[in-house]
Amino acid sequence: MRCRIIGCQWSLVRSLQEMQTFPDRLVAAIRQRGNPCVIGLDPRIELMPAFLKSGRPDTRETARSIIADFHDLVLDTVGSLIPAVKPQLAFFEQYGIPGMQAFEETLAASKKRGLLVIADAKRNDVSSTAEAYAKAYLSDQAFDADAMTVTPYLGRDSLTPYVAECAKHGKGLLVVLKTSNPGSRDFQDLPLRSTGQPLYESIAAMIDDFGKDLVGESGYSSIGAVVGATFPDDARRLRSLMPRAFILATGYGAQGASVEGTSACFNSDGLGAIVPSSRGITYAHRDQNITKQAFVQLVRDNTLRMIDEITRGIPVSALSAR
Amino acid sequence: MRCRIIGCQWSLVRSLQEMQTFPDRLVAAIRQRGNPCVIGLDPRIELMPAFLKSGRPDTRETARSIIADFHDLVLDTVGSLIPAVKPQLAFFEQYGIPGMQAFEETLAASKKRGLLVIADAKRNDVSSTAEAYAKAYLSDQAFDADAMTVTPYLGRDSLTPYVAECAKHGKGLLVVLKTSNPGSRDFQDLPLRSTGQPLYESIAAMIDDFGKDLVGESGYSSIGAVVGATFPDDARRLRSLMPRAFILATGYGAQGASVEGTSACFNSDGLGAIVPSSRGITYAHRDQNITKQAFVQLVRDNTLRMIDEITRGIPVSALSAR
Repeated sequence: MRCRIIGCQWSLVRSLQEMQTFPDRLVAAIRQRGNPCVIGLDPRIELMPAFLKSGRPDTRETARSIIADFHDLVLDTVGSLIPAVKPQLAFFEQYGIPGMQAFEETLAASKKRGLLVIADAKRNDVSSTAEAYAKAYLSDQAFDADAMTVTPYLGRDSLTPYVAECAKHGKGLLVVLKTSNPGSRDFQDLPLRSTGQPLYESIAAMIDDFGKDLVGESGYSSIGAVVGATFPDDARRLRSLMPRAFILATGYGAQGASVEGTSACFNSDGLGAIVPSSRGITYAHRDQNITKQAFVQLVRDNTLRMIDEITRGIPVSALSAR
Repeated sequence: MRCRIIGCQWSLVRSLQEMQTFPDRLVAAIRQRGNPCVIGLDPRIELMPAFLKSGRPDTRETARSIIADFHDLVLDTVGSLIPAVKPQLAFFEQYGIPGMQAFEETLAASKKRGLLVIADAKRNDVSSTAEAYAKAYLSDQAFDADAMTVTPYLGRDSLTPYVAECAKHGKGLLVVLKTSNPGSRDFQDLPLRSTGQPLYESIAAMIDDFGKDLVGESGYSSIGAVVGATFPDDARRLRSLMPRAFILATGYGAQGASVEGTSACFNSDGLGAIVPSSRGITYAHRDQNITKQAFVQLVRDNTLRMIDEITRGIPVSALSAR
């Protein structure tokens, strides 16, 4: 890890904002921070340390400030170490309006620290409804993240509004392709009569096709994919089918994906994938009565250990700042 | 249409709340209102009549009250005619926090009028994240709708948390199965090597299987499906594959589904489907300068015309109150 000073942080924020495409901003941030690790921000108040909650009754209204304080602490700890964060919308929505307010605050707090924000929303719908989701998360009209995740089941026309929004605002799209859970075998893996290949390969072809017109200076496209690192062989195959796509390689940490699995998601240039971890970083404390100091140390240690593990399988040259 | 008086409304509200399962409450409401029509609530301020917006600047903060006022007007007009409403989350989320506040208000305003609420969210994710979505929309922890829509691509284990929440709270789940858009052919229709049948049939089998343990007194299950009425043959096939499932038969109105298509989604008992319409009811005015009185009349006329069209293809006996 290189030492970071305030001036460097601000120049990174500026340069990221000036860059046109999401993958170019992402590649710059990965090189600047020296790793492709992403911390997942999944607010689960019941798992948070007691020191954050003490003196605050368990109400709807306190949820917002507890979540905001928790994420401020996490971001203060890891914000200078990693290129991006991935707030998971579900965990904010479960707290209703205060949760969504906390999402807005988390988004702003992350961007203020020069972090790219991937809204893990797994949204989608048809026609004008898909347009509304794209506006909600990829424009400055509502939540203004750098990228969002979407599901592909509704077909090609359901994704075009997001692709258009990416082109317009320099944002990124990560299409759910092959997920990290055992149930990903149920439908995603089913071989098709036409090709004999799994369904996910047809979706990969669509992602690659959508992406070819949105390739940035980095050689990577604004249209990427979510691929479970829990299935290394599938990940390797998908990597080769979508050479320009950034892969969000899920399942590392609590879900048990190996470094072999995450490594399979990278291109030979050492880029093309980002690896998120949530619970393994922010909820690794066994004792809710952990002190603030010990919690901060644990989050930092776990992040550094993750960075070390993930980067070990990647050509180091690709991760040095230009 | 039977005349409704305040007393009847309240007894309906009470009896719906006392019933255990979503399909039982839905069947009772369909019988009470005499039709299976659902009005979609899709806030799109740019399409709303000018009288709602005049004197209010176009800001984030006014979005909330404009949407709430619009839905109050629509609900006052159609609330006594139909069994349920379907707010589309995307259109609320596009307005950020004020939009989500308006969603919460729309939910409350709908329930106050004795309407069942289907949160059209098309969410999903894996394991604890799916649990969070289920809590967000199917428990009283956050948005507390009567039912929600989800996507199936992530597999069987991604749906079990919602099924559990339905069982616990008497809520309903509508799994996206065969959508109304042209792009539904891209993946949903792909024949599988194993069966030669479209992918959606495998998903239908899962929906039917999930549903069999959650069948209410009405004979219908808490686990239903979203099926586009734009493809009548597919709808007919899916109807026969999931006899216990309630089908949300989409595409009527602006998307051009025929009454043949919607009729194909019903069982021979005249039940088993609900038909939503959004734009065709709430944004049918050609002139934004329409008066309030004319707008109310138009929404009412369009709703009555829809009810007439949809019910024409259904055995009338099934729709009379018990």
